[in-house]
Amino acid sequence: MAAVIDDADVKQKVDDLYARYAQSLCDGDLDAWPEFFVDDCLYKLTSRANYERNLAIGPIFSETKGALIDRTRALKTALVYAQRYVCYIVGSIRIVGRAPDKGWDTRSMFSAYQTFVDGDSKLMMCGRTFDRIVLDGNTAKFSRRVVVYDNERVPSAVVYPL
Amino acid sequence: MAAVIDDADVKQKVDDLYARYAQSLCDGDLDAWPEFFVDDCLYKLTSRANYERNLAIGPIFSETKGALIDRTRALKTALVYAQRYVCYIVGSIRIVGRAPDKGWDTRSMFSAYQTFVDGDSKLMMCGRTFDRIVLDGNTAKFSRRVVVYDNERVPSAVVYPL
Amino acid sequence: MAAVIDDADVKQKVDDLYARYAQSLCDGDLDAWPEFFVDDCLYKLTSRANYERNLAIGPIFSETKGALIDRTRALKTALVYAQRYVCYIVGSIRIVGRAPDKGWDTRSMFSAYQTFVDGDSKLMMCGRTFDRIVLDGNTAKFSRRVVVYDNERVPSAVVYPL
Repeated sequence: MAAVIDDADVKQKVDDLYARYAQSLCDGDLDAWPEFFVDDCLYKLTSRANYERNLAIGPIFSETKGALIDRTRALKTALVYAQRYVCYIVGSIRIVGRAPDKGWDTRSMFSAYQTFVDGDSKLMMCGRTFDRIVLDGNTAKFSRRVVVYDNERVPSAVVYPL
Repeated sequence: MAAVIDDADVKQKVDDLYARYAQSLCDGDLDAWPEFFVDDCLYKLTSRANYERNLAIGPIFSETKGALIDRTRALKTALVYAQRYVCYIVGSIRIVGRAPDKGWDTRSMFSAYQTFVDGDSKLMMCGRTFDRIVLDGNTAKFSRRVVVYDNERVPSAVVYPL
Repeated sequence: MAAVIDDADVKQKVDDLYARYAQSLCDGDLDAWPEFFVDDCLYKLTSRANYERNLAIGPIFSETKGALIDRTRALKTALVYAQRYVCYIVGSIRIVGRAPDKGWDTRSMFSAYQTFVDGDSKLMMCGRTFDRIVLDGNTAKFSRRVVVYDNERVPSAVVYPL
C-alpha cells in the first residue's frame, strides 16, 4: 500500500535534495557525493550536442553507486589535477512528472564556476539537468541524474562531478 | 465574486511559472514562448540605463501576444543569426504587491548565458525583471514582463527573448 | 514561553529575507542594507582561503549594525570609486540548524556580477554564505552574515557589500 504523499511535501523534499547537493559540491565534500544516490542509479555528465543526438559518450557515465564511489576514490588517490573550488548555482527546480518506478522526474537549470588557486573564478559549465528522484526511507535521493552542459568546450578539464 | 486565494498557493504558482518559463528558454522552445503570456500583454527587454531614464527604447518591445508570435515567426523563418543555446538562471522570485487588475506584481533576478556552436558559454545578460502575473483559469501567465539588463553592451546580438 | 513556529512558515520567511536582500543589492539601495540586520550583528566578507584558515582578515568586517551604517555613509559621501551595478543571484538557501540564541543557521550559494558604466558584466564573486537569522518581531533579519567568496582575486575592488 503506497503512502499518501502530499505534493507540497514532495516539492519541499526535492528542493532540499538539490540544496544539499549544491552545498556538498561547493564544500568540495567528495565522500558525501555518492550518498545522494540510491544503489541502482544512473549518473551521466554529457554535452548538449551529444545529448540531442542520443550519443552516450560524455566525461562521466556511471551505472551504479559503486561506480560513483570509484570515481571519488580516483579523485582522492589516483588522479592528478590542479586544485580547484567549484561553485554550483541551481535554479528553476521543477517536478515534471511522476516516474514509473514510484518516484519523480525533475529538472533544473544550473551554472557552475571553477576557481583555481592562483586565479579568477571562471564559468565552468551551464546547462540543464534531467533527473529522477525517489524516496529512500524519508530521504530524497537521485536514482538518475543526467547533467547536460551547453558548452561543448569545457575550460580546463572536467574533474569534479556536478 | 473573487475566489479566495491562498498566499502559499499563489507563491507556488508564481514560482512554477518562472520555472516553466526558464525551462522553455533553455530548451529553445520558441513556439511555447508566447503561451506564457495573456493576449493583452506587455513585453519589454531594455537596458538598465534606459529603464532608469524612462526611455522606451530597447531590443524588444511588444504590446500584444500577437506581436510575440510575430517575433517567434521572424526568428524561425526570416532572421539570419548564428545558432546558439541560451541558459537562463533565475533567482529571488518575489511577489512585491497586488496588482490593480487582480494579479500580482512580481520581481526576479537573472543571469543568462549564450553558447555558440563552436565556442564557450559567455554571460549574455544579467539583471532584474519587473513583472505582472495573472491567473488565466488555473494557470499563471505574464500580463507584463519587463526585463532590465545591467550590461549596456550585449555580446553578439539579442536574438532570443528572455 | 516560546511561540510555536511552523517549519514551512520559517522557511518561507528565510527565503523571503534572501529575496528581499538580493533585490535591494541589485537595486543599489544602500540605505536599506543595514536594515536587514539586527543591532547586535556580525557581517564578514572574506575569501575562502582565509575562511578555511580561520583568518579574520577580509574586505569587510563589522560587528554592529552601526558599523554597517558607517559603511554605507562612507560609500555615499567619502569613498571614490567607479560607478557600477551589482547583480546578485542566490541559490540553494537552506536552514542547516537551530541556532543557540533562538534563531536559525542558514546557508546559501551565490554568484554576483559587476557592470561598469562603459563596460560589460563580469563575474565579481561566487561562493557561499554562512548566516544566522532571527525574528525581529515578525520580520526575519540577519544576526550574522558571513560571505565567503571562492575567487582570491576580486576584479576591480570590493565596493558594495554582498
